[in-house]
Amino acid sequence: MGHSTNEELETRSLSSSRHQSQNFPHIHKVGVPPKQNLINEFKDTVKETLFSDDPLRPFKDQPRSRKFILGIQAIFPIFEWGRRYNLTKFRGDLIAGLTIASLCIPQDIGYSKLANLPPQYGLYSSFVPPLIYAFMGSSRDIAIGPVAVVSLLLGTLLQNEIDASKDPIGYRRLAFTATFFAGVTQATLGLFRLGFLIDFLSHAAIVGFMGGAAITIALQQLKGFLGIKKFTKKTDIISVMHSVWGSVNHGWNWQTILIGGTFLSFLLFAKYIGKKNKKFFWVPAIAPLVSVILSTFFVYITHAEKKGVEIVRHIEKGINPSSVNQIYFSGEYLGKGFRIGIVAGMIALTEAIAIGRTFASMKDYQLDGNKEMVALGSMNIIGSMTSCYVATGSFSRSAVNYMAGCETAASNIVMSFVVILTLEFITPLFKYTPNAILSAIIISAVINLIDFQAAILIWKIDKFDFVACLGAFFGVIFSSVEIGLLIAVSISFAKILLQVTRPRTAILGNIPRTAVYRNIQQYPDATKVPGILIVRVDSAIYFSNSNYVKERILRWLTDEEEQIKGDYQPRIQFLIVEMSPVTNIDTSGIHAIEELYRSLLKRDVQLILANPGPVVIDKLHASTFANLIGEEKIFLTVAEAVSSCSPKMVEEA
Amino acid sequence: MGHSTNEELETRSLSSSRHQSQNFPHIHKVGVPPKQNLINEFKDTVKETLFSDDPLRPFKDQPRSRKFILGIQAIFPIFEWGRRYNLTKFRGDLIAGLTIASLCIPQDIGYSKLANLPPQYGLYSSFVPPLIYAFMGSSRDIAIGPVAVVSLLLGTLLQNEIDASKDPIGYRRLAFTATFFAGVTQATLGLFRLGFLIDFLSHAAIVGFMGGAAITIALQQLKGFLGIKKFTKKTDIISVMHSVWGSVNHGWNWQTILIGGTFLSFLLFAKYIGKKNKKFFWVPAIAPLVSVILSTFFVYITHAEKKGVEIVRHIEKGINPSSVNQIYFSGEYLGKGFRIGIVAGMIALTEAIAIGRTFASMKDYQLDGNKEMVALGSMNIIGSMTSCYVATGSFSRSAVNYMAGCETAASNIVMSFVVILTLEFITPLFKYTPNAILSAIIISAVINLIDFQAAILIWKIDKFDFVACLGAFFGVIFSSVEIGLLIAVSISFAKILLQVTRPRTAILGNIPRTAVYRNIQQYPDATKVPGILIVRVDSAIYFSNSNYVKERILRWLTDEEEQIKGDYQPRIQFLIVEMSPVTNIDTSGIHAIEELYRSLLKRDVQLILANPGPVVIDKLHASTFANLIGEEKIFLTVAEAVSSCSPKMVEEA
Repeated sequence: MGHSTNEELETRSLSSSRHQSQNFPHIHKVGVPPKQNLINEFKDTVKETLFSDDPLRPFKDQPRSRKFILGIQAIFPIFEWGRRYNLTKFRGDLIAGLTIASLCIPQDIGYSKLANLPPQYGLYSSFVPPLIYAFMGSSRDIAIGPVAVVSLLLGTLLQNEIDASKDPIGYRRLAFTATFFAGVTQATLGLFRLGFLIDFLSHAAIVGFMGGAAITIALQQLKGFLGIKKFTKKTDIISVMHSVWGSVNHGWNWQTILIGGTFLSFLLFAKYIGKKNKKFFWVPAIAPLVSVILSTFFVYITHAEKKGVEIVRHIEKGINPSSVNQIYFSGEYLGKGFRIGIVAGMIALTEAIAIGRTFASMKDYQLDGNKEMVALGSMNIIGSMTSCYVATGSFSRSAVNYMAGCETAASNIVMSFVVILTLEFITPLFKYTPNAILSAIIISAVINLIDFQAAILIWKIDKFDFVACLGAFFGVIFSSVEIGLLIAVSISFAKILLQVTRPRTAILGNIPRTAVYRNIQQYPDATKVPGILIVRVDSAIYFSNSNYVKERILRWLTDEEEQIKGDYQPRIQFLIVEMSPVTNIDTSGIHAIEELYRSLLKRDVQLILANPGPVVIDKLHASTFANLIGEEKIFLTVAEAVSSCSPKMVEEA
Repeated sequence: MGHSTNEELETRSLSSSRHQSQNFPHIHKVGVPPKQNLINEFKDTVKETLFSDDPLRPFKDQPRSRKFILGIQAIFPIFEWGRRYNLTKFRGDLIAGLTIASLCIPQDIGYSKLANLPPQYGLYSSFVPPLIYAFMGSSRDIAIGPVAVVSLLLGTLLQNEIDASKDPIGYRRLAFTATFFAGVTQATLGLFRLGFLIDFLSHAAIVGFMGGAAITIALQQLKGFLGIKKFTKKTDIISVMHSVWGSVNHGWNWQTILIGGTFLSFLLFAKYIGKKNKKFFWVPAIAPLVSVILSTFFVYITHAEKKGVEIVRHIEKGINPSSVNQIYFSGEYLGKGFRIGIVAGMIALTEAIAIGRTFASMKDYQLDGNKEMVALGSMNIIGSMTSCYVATGSFSRSAVNYMAGCETAASNIVMSFVVILTLEFITPLFKYTPNAILSAIIISAVINLIDFQAAILIWKIDKFDFVACLGAFFGVIFSSVEIGLLIAVSISFAKILLQVTRPRTAILGNIPRTAVYRNIQQYPDATKVPGILIVRVDSAIYFSNSNYVKERILRWLTDEEEQIKGDYQPRIQFLIVEMSPVTNIDTSGIHAIEELYRSLLKRDVQLILANPGPVVIDKLHASTFANLIGEEKIFLTVAEAVSSCSPKMVEEA
């Protein structure tokens, strides 16, 4: 009864149509989009895949000279924002630049240790790359330099090939080679507009990987923090704990622990203050430098280095030497450097783009991912020739940069100048800086990478994502960064593949007193129409799922028939497939639908399609399947399809 | 005007709701599905992924003894269909079995050459595996034995490791090892119900790969066909042509060409007759055996072998010897055999399942893919211990089996017995069989694998699929089977990845005089609603596309705003995202929607969601995004969402 009322309303609201208003007053024809020729179709696909952001739009309809200027500005955005630069903006950038410089100098020295490189290389990498980025980058908030995770990853991968303690020169050369290819990878992805490839690392996997890497890095710091001399070269938690507890009786140095512990508490307290009140963001930002100065002074006057407190001892003075000749352009290390470079480059890219996007959306400006990649790639290529290792956007420093009120990438230039001054004049003063302080600074920095809240949110939203997150996390801490990364990538891909092989299907019912048909699981008061089974397929039908879709629909039918058997209901005569979510179909998909049609024919059930999209209807016609089932079996809406079935239902009953 | 009429109708047809009928008379609440607990959710996912065919259904509510019998029947379907077996069925199976036996014997001898094995191994592989399959397999039409493509693939891969002419014993051992692991791979996939993995090879890529393999195999036959002694070991078309034309003056043997040419014409003519009239299907089926008998007799009486006509010379008499001890279970060849076995096993599986499904859908019976894999795997594992190499379903012989009227897998048993008799008594008679005949038989057999019509259909339906098809095809003929296979797999994956990174989006318009909103490109007379932009996202929103989706929606908005500027139309105040096709969303997707919401807020545009599915609405609530935008901004249909916007539109105007 409810059903018949419903149909009346339907008829009224869906009355008349433009195409066949005489013959079928209630029926709209499903539109077949105008035929495109092959080249246009191909052009559209390429455009949507590679140029989805329409980068050439501003160039349209411009005179030649203007195009040239726009081109220059596109490659070097500094010429664009530089023209509107003024003193107010400079004030913001100056303060932000000085703040991040004070944060980056101690961090750089620590991070270069993670990469098994002498301390000055960290500083080198905070001079050239930020400068280049300031000219080419389009993010206003990112702070460029070495970062913890990339340093650790690079250090692990390089150490697998060359032992840094035995052959430091060869190791360094391989590091520059890897940096060079990291830059080439980044720039290439950007130039060929393949930036979307980094989207294949899922957010959940990254959260897990970063958390695991942070713990691994913190564990590595126990060496400096406890003053242990003999320490494992492995990074997994078991080997490290073995090293730590194995040396508890004769390897720990209490003076080191005292210094490290004191300053770590100080740093964490500073962090707490900064978190409590956003106005004091500068407290945690300058705390590391303050710790370095205080502890260095303390060691210098007490001569603690003679009591077993390890100190930095020597940092090379002067700015970056050239390293063009040190890159391996031939030999066996070319291939190895290439491979390491690709991995490090991709991870660095992922981090930088994530940071860039976060801050761009906070200040609501557009960030061109591909352009960013070219900028990051260029800075690493030039960096590899000026004794830098892989630099990228640092999350902690970028956040400080943002809070300190940076206005443009000029804050990177300010930071860069402070680093030059440091290299030229101040490095000898770091001689007495205890390693324990650097460890404490790194520990307090990487703690931020463990993002509990994100993990909890992932758990709440998607359990499978959470498994991915945990997998990457445990992979890193129990095995190594590479294994963790591999797990993260594999799980990400597995998720994509699962998504395309097992699309959802749903049985639809009519929502009372409407012409709307919805999933009966979601809307328990939606009612099935007797004698008709309405199935919605929730995905494009491709080779990877065509067979499943066909079999799943048949299984719905079998289930339904079994259920009806006892109920004295009319048997299922019509199967309506709601195709709204089916955005595309390929050859295998067409085959599957044909097989479905034939199976249904044998069971004496009619197949009816509702609302196929433009691409699907086009292909149904191309494959002549539309003729096979008859065009009059393809409807604009489920409601129309249902009303077309009803008359025969009545006869039958 | 048309718009207001429309709204009236809408209001009428969508009147009243159960939840909030007092406050919002026109609005239905979007259903939130009942909360499932974690274990159920996980169980459902696993069930849908691995047990989508519900294999345990017949076991439900059965007594224990019945369960046991059902279990035995599930593993050995012969005990199920055997009970209904009768003489009529046996008559069909006997005729079919004899026909395929006459076809398989000459083919087997030829195919074993493709695998670089002595001729009797082809016959061995047509004895044990079909017998095992008859007990365990569930297809009624498939004919088991060695097939051309797998033989070629195995031959190429094995030859890369061990040269068959220098170390035939080692080569054979590796072949058995590979066969063993091919079987293990197949059985494992079936047991763990991972059968869906073979769906990742797209139909188009298989068509291309098979066509390329057929041409490569045919080219290889030129050696035997032209009587060339020195022939390249490579399989690409350029090397082969070089070999062929390089030996034109002193390598070709006219007697061989004469015999080969005559019988090839005969075979092709027989094929033509069989194609012309389905009643004569047996003509091409027995033509090969007739050719072998005639040509052998001819060579025997003319002693053509003394004039340079190559003959088979020797086939070992007697049935399969054991080869258990010959499988490498340790050493370096273990790994190599394992790797080759996986590749050969997967390809063999793809072919067998495709054949099984084709005939199952023609006779309309269900085929359990995973059970099939266990059967195929078991037969290859046992085969590897009885001197067989990888066997699978042969398309040409299965088609003959089907047309000859086979009723059950018993036709494989008949064939198997004929092969034993051949091995025991007739093999010496093959001594004088000229190799040219075997080449002619293989050429006429593999021609069927070149499926022009499928290629044309692929071109019509999906251009990208066609590129995949061509890529695999040219990869095989210009490089090697492995490269072709690699290309086929890569292109298949690239297609999946492209599909998930760049989902379609569409602008919807109202179809005149209905409450229906559709893609305005497909339905040119659908009209946009002033002040409202309606975007439909045509895919689940995952990490791989979340960023693209967000940016694409914003670009639609920008485009629309630019277009409106000149038209004196009200500015866009509402953005409705139609989410019907969005079947799922993950953490990254929620992030992207949040960012979209914030960007729109800055532009003073309201975000409204229409018809999120059960999973999506669940996650919107879990992430508190539903609270952020307000539940009253989530509607059941686009029509309701539009009508909720209208009042403010009027105020504004």
